[in-house]
Amino acid sequence: MQVVQHYQQLFEAYRKSRPFGGQPEGLYAPVNYIMDLGGKRLRPAMALMGYGLFQDEVQPALPLAYAVEIFHNFTLVHDDIMDAAPLRRGKPTVHTLFNTNAAILSGDVMLISAYEYLLQMQPKERLPEVLAIFNRVAREVCEGQQMDMDFESRQDVSIPEYLRMIELKTAVLIAGCLAMGATAAGASQADAGRLYAFGRLSGVAFQLQDDILDTFGNAEKVGKKIGGDIAQNKKTFLILKALEIAPAAEKNRLHDLMHGKETGEATKINEVTSLLVQLGIKELAVREKNRFRDLAMEELGAIHCEEARKVPLRELAEALIDREF
Amino acid sequence: MQVVQHYQQLFEAYRKSRPFGGQPEGLYAPVNYIMDLGGKRLRPAMALMGYGLFQDEVQPALPLAYAVEIFHNFTLVHDDIMDAAPLRRGKPTVHTLFNTNAAILSGDVMLISAYEYLLQMQPKERLPEVLAIFNRVAREVCEGQQMDMDFESRQDVSIPEYLRMIELKTAVLIAGCLAMGATAAGASQADAGRLYAFGRLSGVAFQLQDDILDTFGNAEKVGKKIGGDIAQNKKTFLILKALEIAPAAEKNRLHDLMHGKETGEATKINEVTSLLVQLGIKELAVREKNRFRDLAMEELGAIHCEEARKVPLRELAEALIDREF
Repeated sequence: MQVVQHYQQLFEAYRKSRPFGGQPEGLYAPVNYIMDLGGKRLRPAMALMGYGLFQDEVQPALPLAYAVEIFHNFTLVHDDIMDAAPLRRGKPTVHTLFNTNAAILSGDVMLISAYEYLLQMQPKERLPEVLAIFNRVAREVCEGQQMDMDFESRQDVSIPEYLRMIELKTAVLIAGCLAMGATAAGASQADAGRLYAFGRLSGVAFQLQDDILDTFGNAEKVGKKIGGDIAQNKKTFLILKALEIAPAAEKNRLHDLMHGKETGEATKINEVTSLLVQLGIKELAVREKNRFRDLAMEELGAIHCEEARKVPLRELAEALIDREF
Repeated sequence: MQVVQHYQQLFEAYRKSRPFGGQPEGLYAPVNYIMDLGGKRLRPAMALMGYGLFQDEVQPALPLAYAVEIFHNFTLVHDDIMDAAPLRRGKPTVHTLFNTNAAILSGDVMLISAYEYLLQMQPKERLPEVLAIFNRVAREVCEGQQMDMDFESRQDVSIPEYLRMIELKTAVLIAGCLAMGATAAGASQADAGRLYAFGRLSGVAFQLQDDILDTFGNAEKVGKKIGGDIAQNKKTFLILKALEIAPAAEKNRLHDLMHGKETGEATKINEVTSLLVQLGIKELAVREKNRFRDLAMEELGAIHCEEARKVPLRELAEALIDREF
């Protein structure tokens, strides 16, 4: 993990020396607020790791790393408006602390700023390729968010559709960070493509682990209440799998629990969880997660670079996919 | 005007053959709706005219022209949310017809699409310069919108601040379209800079004419109710100039009319307009507009290209700045 920590420190130093400034303050104060709110800085680390597979010094990739982190935070600001979320990382969301108009417009200027940092990348002859990846990924993230919103009012979401949604909403950006880093570093299109596939497959596995932890995690380790997805009737992989394989009686019971007027939230969470345990859903979800992880590792294995350089990336991906927090 | 019409036809044919498609429909239907709503297509025409100053055939600039029109419509979609506007070009706004979430997210994907079309421009070695202009202008348009919103709650807006706001909100995009077209066509930085200045100064003159027509226009020619700015207490150039030069009595009267509980809207519009006439504001506004127009024409005159090629651009700018509709 030393490499990752080193990259994250490099990134934080770069970011902190480049705050959003200037006038009008109403536009830039919300940007600095969300950028300073923290987070794991996973995406910039991925951009630097993609670059580091092919180059010794990753400093030239710092503008790219900043661009992807700004983009990610832009999506958080706008998604939080759409989801009417009051909190982000335990603090008020931008539209709550400022107002919705400020959150819309400050988000817009963040997306533009991401392109400003992208434009700073070197070497310039790689810019069109990197931009093409960024544009495609950015568009797909919007498509994923739209699918996620559409799913709320749909009762017939299939597992392939769900996997596609989490791929678009989460995984392609991780994949794009790695592939943009590699492309900027001079990787071949084939290797950048394999790294993209590695990121995409790992990202889906990461998100499946999210679903698993929300229902089967240890509250102390996860650091939040268990069962939130069940309480909100979210159509996660677990629920969709249960609806797919459950016999009629259990399926009806699950429907009733999700849509009926049951006693209370705690009871609902307990009953749904028991049903999922009874159906062996946790094991099926872990198996699906492992399938994605193994496919991801195959892609990483096939990339043409010094094998030793792959180690930190493999370790990080495995740690994230199997995390218990 | 034949050149302009020719460019607009070229652009419309290009645009219509490239609708936004694909899934999810909830994301792209609002985009097609706003793009098909019409409008003068002034900004793509400017991009093509900037290109046409230096090249015989403007077809290579069509992706750039599309990019700026998509960007402009993105700003309309988000601005209409922020301004809570029910109508746009006489039709329901996107957030009214669909919903606010759709308007936010579809606007986001439009901004990304603008960059996708920018990336298609040729020749690729000019891309960094064109992108740099686009990024700066896009950021400034956001800054202008923020200033405009800030002005609503401020009582001490100065005329230089107002001119800066309309420059950022409207003029820099016109200027950027011209400069990006010229840059893509191989113009020198100096000539692209003069063309940018021409667009910026013309854009401010255009916006001043907007202020003049809203109060002193002919309702039949303008095609809408006269006095809307006064009714809404908008701090236009006319009002700010009046507050600057009026003797104490008239200044108080203007304040009372704007903030007091007067008889009704029609009376308010009549009384404020009379006061503006009495103070000679229309003449001062026309003089200011002409000052910007003359400065713009000086910049156009200094550009190094065939003089004949400047004629359509000069005629269009003059027609727009002195329009009565």
